[in-house]
Amino acid sequence: MSEQSHYGLSTPVKESYEDAITKVTAELKEQGFGILTEIDVKATMKKKLDVDIDKYIILGACNPKLAYQSLQAEQEMGLLLPCNVIVYEKAGTTYVSMLDPMSMMAFSGNDALCDMAEEARSRLDKVYEAMKS
Amino acid sequence: MSEQSHYGLSTPVKESYEDAITKVTAELKEQGFGILTEIDVKATMKKKLDVDIDKYIILGACNPKLAYQSLQAEQEMGLLLPCNVIVYEKAGTTYVSMLDPMSMMAFSGNDALCDMAEEARSRLDKVYEAMKS
Repeated sequence: MSEQSHYGLSTPVKESYEDAITKVTAELKEQGFGILTEIDVKATMKKKLDVDIDKYIILGACNPKLAYQSLQAEQEMGLLLPCNVIVYEKAGTTYVSMLDPMSMMAFSGNDALCDMAEEARSRLDKVYEAMKS
Repeated sequence: MSEQSHYGLSTPVKESYEDAITKVTAELKEQGFGILTEIDVKATMKKKLDVDIDKYIILGACNPKLAYQSLQAEQEMGLLLPCNVIVYEKAGTTYVSMLDPMSMMAFSGNDALCDMAEEARSRLDKVYEAMKS
């Protein structure tokens, strides 16, 4: 069972920020999700605005088979892909959060995406459980 | 005024796929949005699944100032960033669609994001108008 916060599955983890990125990437791979994009938010904010924030990365995770099926069901689904996974530090603790595909499916208003969203959610639940433990 | 489709602003454009990517990137830059990520969906699908789809790219657009303010208002906002802009071909026509920040704000359920979402939407409306014309 996973905790639901607004639109994501979020949990503190015992790993350091760097180790949490490595672990969640491996767990996502185990569930068929590759990382297509990485945004180092801390580095981007420093470079663009010269402000200092805590460590924060946005990983764009994608299960190609589910993404393909989603795009077949809805041409503009690319607006809601990939599935973001964030890792960040707050007050010395590392957190990992994943966008909930079921929330995004509800948001899209397209019931044809239901099966793909359910499968994606089920796979991300396993990643979530692995990160929590 | 812009057309609203589900969760995005979508329009066919007269440019080729490649020219539309160049133009929308320039128009986004004009409005303070840089492109942080690019996913060539057609190439990814070919590589990962060996399937052929029409040209399709997902551009991750980000206005650093608005992104920073959003992250200050909501720590997990990174799950909904960057703002996706897609360019794709369908039956020989090129289409450009942008995720609507106001829809995403409503989805997040956090009213503190309203000002940032309104400003982002207003800027993207200008990009949308430029692409339509």
